[in-house]
Amino acid sequence: MNDQELTIEGRNAVLEAFRAGRPMDKLLILDGCRDSPIQSIIREARKQETIIQYVSRERLDQMSPGGKHQGVIAYGAAYAYAEIEDMLRAAREKNEPPFLLLLDGIEDPHNLGAIIRTANLAGAHGVIIPKRRAVGLTAVVAKVSAGALNYTPVAKVTNLAQTMEELKEQGMWFVCADMNGESMYRLDLRGPIGLVIGNEGEGVGKRVKETCDMVASIPMHGQIESLNASVAAGVLAYEIVRQRLL
Amino acid sequence: MNDQELTIEGRNAVLEAFRAGRPMDKLLILDGCRDSPIQSIIREARKQETIIQYVSRERLDQMSPGGKHQGVIAYGAAYAYAEIEDMLRAAREKNEPPFLLLLDGIEDPHNLGAIIRTANLAGAHGVIIPKRRAVGLTAVVAKVSAGALNYTPVAKVTNLAQTMEELKEQGMWFVCADMNGESMYRLDLRGPIGLVIGNEGEGVGKRVKETCDMVASIPMHGQIESLNASVAAGVLAYEIVRQRLL
Repeated sequence: MNDQELTIEGRNAVLEAFRAGRPMDKLLILDGCRDSPIQSIIREARKQETIIQYVSRERLDQMSPGGKHQGVIAYGAAYAYAEIEDMLRAAREKNEPPFLLLLDGIEDPHNLGAIIRTANLAGAHGVIIPKRRAVGLTAVVAKVSAGALNYTPVAKVTNLAQTMEELKEQGMWFVCADMNGESMYRLDLRGPIGLVIGNEGEGVGKRVKETCDMVASIPMHGQIESLNASVAAGVLAYEIVRQRLL
Repeated sequence: MNDQELTIEGRNAVLEAFRAGRPMDKLLILDGCRDSPIQSIIREARKQETIIQYVSRERLDQMSPGGKHQGVIAYGAAYAYAEIEDMLRAAREKNEPPFLLLLDGIEDPHNLGAIIRTANLAGAHGVIIPKRRAVGLTAVVAKVSAGALNYTPVAKVTNLAQTMEELKEQGMWFVCADMNGESMYRLDLRGPIGLVIGNEGEGVGKRVKETCDMVASIPMHGQIESLNASVAAGVLAYEIVRQRLL
């Protein structure tokens, strides 16, 4: 599988892919194009809550793998997305308190792949990513995950803070990583927990941070600002593993 | 700085760069080429212990940035390498037991950059890499390190196991990461320590592993084989940080 295979262009091909229920990450539409076949495609994309971007002809021409886009290009997800309910069920079946990783806008596919790999080995029951301003399950992510995508479910949600509120009603606690937080070694991270990792450059968003019950920091003994996002996710996930093993 | 700027081609330019003492990662020589100017370049490269590779004309043409290689292309290191003695001195001056990271053949520049970043924030006094079969301090590594290369020294050695033997005589202990080891939470990782991380695919080499005093494993609760190398380095380095804080 490569990125090329996941790019679908042309009105019929894109419409058929949506109608077949194939999971899609993004839809590019020629700006100003509003004819009836395009309207049908937009309707199907909205049903799936796929991100729609209106772009210039130059941009479409540039992104087109075969030069026959007819005003529309869609990007299929390399893997199907899961439901959060399935993650919670998996935790119940294993008789474990739920352990989820929530990624607030990871943009680098290498980081997303490495974090899914870490989620698998740390025994997390799933990974939750937002629909907007974040990389989806592309072929690069699948490859970097080293097979973990076959075992660890990934769900995509419209509003991360709202999803967290719903999960809090079901008894989950949330901890986010931020350098102004309490040292992770001094927090109690056992029990049903969601670990929130922020965007590579900007960290965790304001509303998501406010929704968290705890803010954890990784002790920093050096001169630079922060760890790589996937390394920070690994260090924090394994602090949760350590506390669960106590 | 980009990779192009670090590629030097042509006999005079390469010879001058070596004579100026500029740190070099690799020297490519046209296979079969043995004339006197080439012999001078090889002599200088051997003084610096630079890796020499004999390659075909096609390969040289392909790697040549300006098409004027005259049978020789050299790759300069983006940063100068440090001496291990400087790392030990830095530890003494801070009144800390030495903490070094040794990388047994990391090939991916993103992993090396992320590990140097982790070394900086975990308070390690330096990173040691081998000359052969490993990525050096390229421009990509410098960029991914997010500035850490300006603070955390990196030394390059001919034989990692031999360097470890010498450091053991000075009182250092070595722990390597391997899934068949003892759980890292049950080992005493305080004191003067070198953490050894293996190659992305093959792990730690046989002789290096035999030279280690301890073999540590990261608890694995999933279905796949191993963590990403830079994530594993982060998780183990922070277990050392945690134990040092106790």
